[in-house]
This record gives sequence, C-alpha cells and structure tokens, in this order.
Amino acid sequence: MTVAPSDRTRVKRMNKRAHYDEATIHPILDAQPLCTVGYVFNGSPVVTPTLQWREGNHIYWHGSSASRMLETAEDADVCVNVTIFDGMVMARSAYNHSCNYRSVMAFGKAFKVTDAGEKEARLKAFTEALFPGRWEMLRRMTAQELKATTVLGLELNEVSAKVRNGPPGDDEEDYALPIWAGIIPIGYRFGPPIDDPRLVPGLTPPAHVTDFKFG
Amino acid sequence: MTVAPSDRTRVKRMNKRAHYDEATIHPILDAQPLCTVGYVFNGSPVVTPTLQWREGNHIYWHGSSASRMLETAEDADVCVNVTIFDGMVMARSAYNHSCNYRSVMAFGKAFKVTDAGEKEARLKAFTEALFPGRWEMLRRMTAQELKATTVLGLELNEVSAKVRNGPPGDDEEDYALPIWAGIIPIGYRFGPPIDDPRLVPGLTPPAHVTDFKFG
Repeated sequence: MTVAPSDRTRVKRMNKRAHYDEATIHPILDAQPLCTVGYVFNGSPVVTPTLQWREGNHIYWHGSSASRMLETAEDADVCVNVTIFDGMVMARSAYNHSCNYRSVMAFGKAFKVTDAGEKEARLKAFTEALFPGRWEMLRRMTAQELKATTVLGLELNEVSAKVRNGPPGDDEEDYALPIWAGIIPIGYRFGPPIDDPRLVPGLTPPAHVTDFKFG
Repeated sequence: MTVAPSDRTRVKRMNKRAHYDEATIHPILDAQPLCTVGYVFNGSPVVTPTLQWREGNHIYWHGSSASRMLETAEDADVCVNVTIFDGMVMARSAYNHSCNYRSVMAFGKAFKVTDAGEKEARLKAFTEALFPGRWEMLRRMTAQELKATTVLGLELNEVSAKVRNGPPGDDEEDYALPIWAGIIPIGYRFGPPIDDPRLVPGLTPPAHVTDFKFG
C-alpha cells in the first residue's frame, strides 16, 4: 500500500515520513513488544501500556480477565501505538531539533479470542516470539489460568507507520554556524540475567535468556 | 497522597502496585521524555507519541501548530502515559511471567500556552532539561518559529503510577521445579554521537551530548 487505508489512518504532519506498507509496518511491530492501547472509557480517553505480538495480519495483547482495559476494549474502537525511540537529532536551532523513531499506529475494533484452544495457541506464540523454546520448558498452563486470561486481537487493516532517520535538517544559513549538530543514537541494552533468589541450585539461564533481545 | 485523586485515576488491577504520590510520580516523568497522548477524535481514540517534560506540577508537550493531535487535544480530555520498561520477569509458568516497569497515567484537560514569552520559556526548559547548556549555544528562535510551535500543558491533578519490580511471584509448589527463573534487566543505551555530515570542521560534541542520558 502506498496510500492510507482510511482517513483517520492518514499521517497529516510530515507525510514524507509516512508509510502504509506491511514491509515497513510488520518489522516495527516485531521489534518492540511494548505498546500503548488507547480506548474510550466513560467518554474519556485512556491509554494503557501492555505488550503486543504479531501473527500474520493481526496483533494481539493479553492480561487479566478482570482488567478494565481488556473489558472495555473488547468490540470497541482502539488505537494501538508502538514507538521505538532511535535517537536524539541535534540541530543548530531549537526549532530543528527532532527525534529519530519508528512508530506504528493501528486503528480498529478489538476482538476477544474466545476459543480456549485458540487462546492457548496465541499465548504460546507470544511466549515463543519473545523466548524461543521456553513454552515447552514451563509448567503447563492450567484451565483456570487460561480462563483468567483475556486475549484481545486487532486485524491490521487501518495502520500507518511514521519513521524518521538520518541527520538534522537545518535551515540552509545555519549550517555555517559553529554549533555541534548530529545524532545521539538511542537503543536498548539487556541483561545480564538475575537469578531468582529461590532458584533451584545449579540451574543456569537458557539461551533465550542470555541472548534475549527485542525482535 | 495515598488514595486515588479520582475514580478514573484509581488503579484497578494489582493495586498493590499503585502509587498516587509525587515522590513516586515525578521521578518517573523526569526519567523518560517519551510519552503517548491519548485523545478522542471524531469519536475514536487516538494515541500519539511525543516528548513530555515536567515543570513543577505540570507536564508539557509540543509540536507543530498544524498537528492534529495538538489541535484536538487543546481544551479536551487527554490521557498521557509514560512507561519505562525495566525488565522481563521470567517465572516457572507462563501465567506468572511479567514485566518490571514504571508507568504514569495522567488525566485532565490539556491547555495551550498562549503567551509568546511563556511559550519560549517552556521550550527553553524542555531543551535545558534534556541538554543542559544547549539553549544558549543555539541560533536564537525566531518569532515565526515560535508562532509555528504549539505547546500544550496538563496540570498533574489526576495521576497514578504503577510500578513493578523484583523477582517473579510463582505458585508455591512451582518453586521446586528445575526451570530457570529470574529477571532480564532492560535499560537504554546512548551514543556514541554521530557528527552531522555538514558539521563545521573541528567541532566536537559538548558534554550534554557525550554524557546524554534520560533523567
């Protein structure tokens, strides 16, 4: 897709940074589990952070069946945002300072995954996407745990990405000024893992822990 | 404050993780400029990432005066969320996996900073909070740039924080299982800085660049 799939999806500002294609959108969703889910509760906007995962043309998120966010978002309009903060962009004027980032905004009606088998399959996919091989190592999920967990999904039909990268864009006459300009790269760092104080003695962290990263 | 300042602010789930005091809330806002602003546009929730900064009992964010988010959020109900992702919490069951995090949710009506002098003072405070000493090094802001910039503010009257830290909480009978459990710490890494390709030769990055960090 090279055009916005709907009016509310169209990026209004800095539309040279806008993308509507899966080749841009999917890798951003896959590179950062943290998301925020926006929904309307009693007429007010509410933004709740949670983790999302993608399977094909859907994203999913989960939580306690007693969660206000999950109860309210079911069958309701939501906006899910994933933002990866890649750097501070330092210009010669305050006005031209910016950030490098990759951001996805997905609109639509969230649906609940009701079938128990499908719900467990989704949770397994989530676990395995973050920690390959972990699901089979774990104590099995009980029927009660599955019942206490709600999984919501959103089809990726109304989605935009906005991406900025590269150096600052200064006013032409400002490039001659003796002011340092450039980029401060920002990224995540992980580990080293911290053993649970009650760990069975002699256990060492598996590769999905020692090699953990996003994406 | 030890009780929620309003009903919509009260943390419903895992309320042992809830905090309503400035001593918890302010350091979280100061430790992470990236936020998401939720608002309602044509009846739909929209969540937009931007940077926030705090001065006293207010947070502010800014952008182009042509921004849909800034136009819509002025004098409207918003929900601003700041989330810091501190770690993956690895348990012996899928169900008890969790995240360590610090999150703030602020509700209220956003207001526009209309006075030009006050607007410039807010933008200076934002710049200086991120990059101490930078404002005076920069080419001065023009009246036109100031006019093209909107600054919105939110008084911190309806705010909650939710914080999780520490090891996993497993079911008592699961602690004996030979499954690695513990924490994968997550944090940010910065730099080294990348010079703008058009930098005046011989300039080196100042301390607010080489020592940059959040908070």
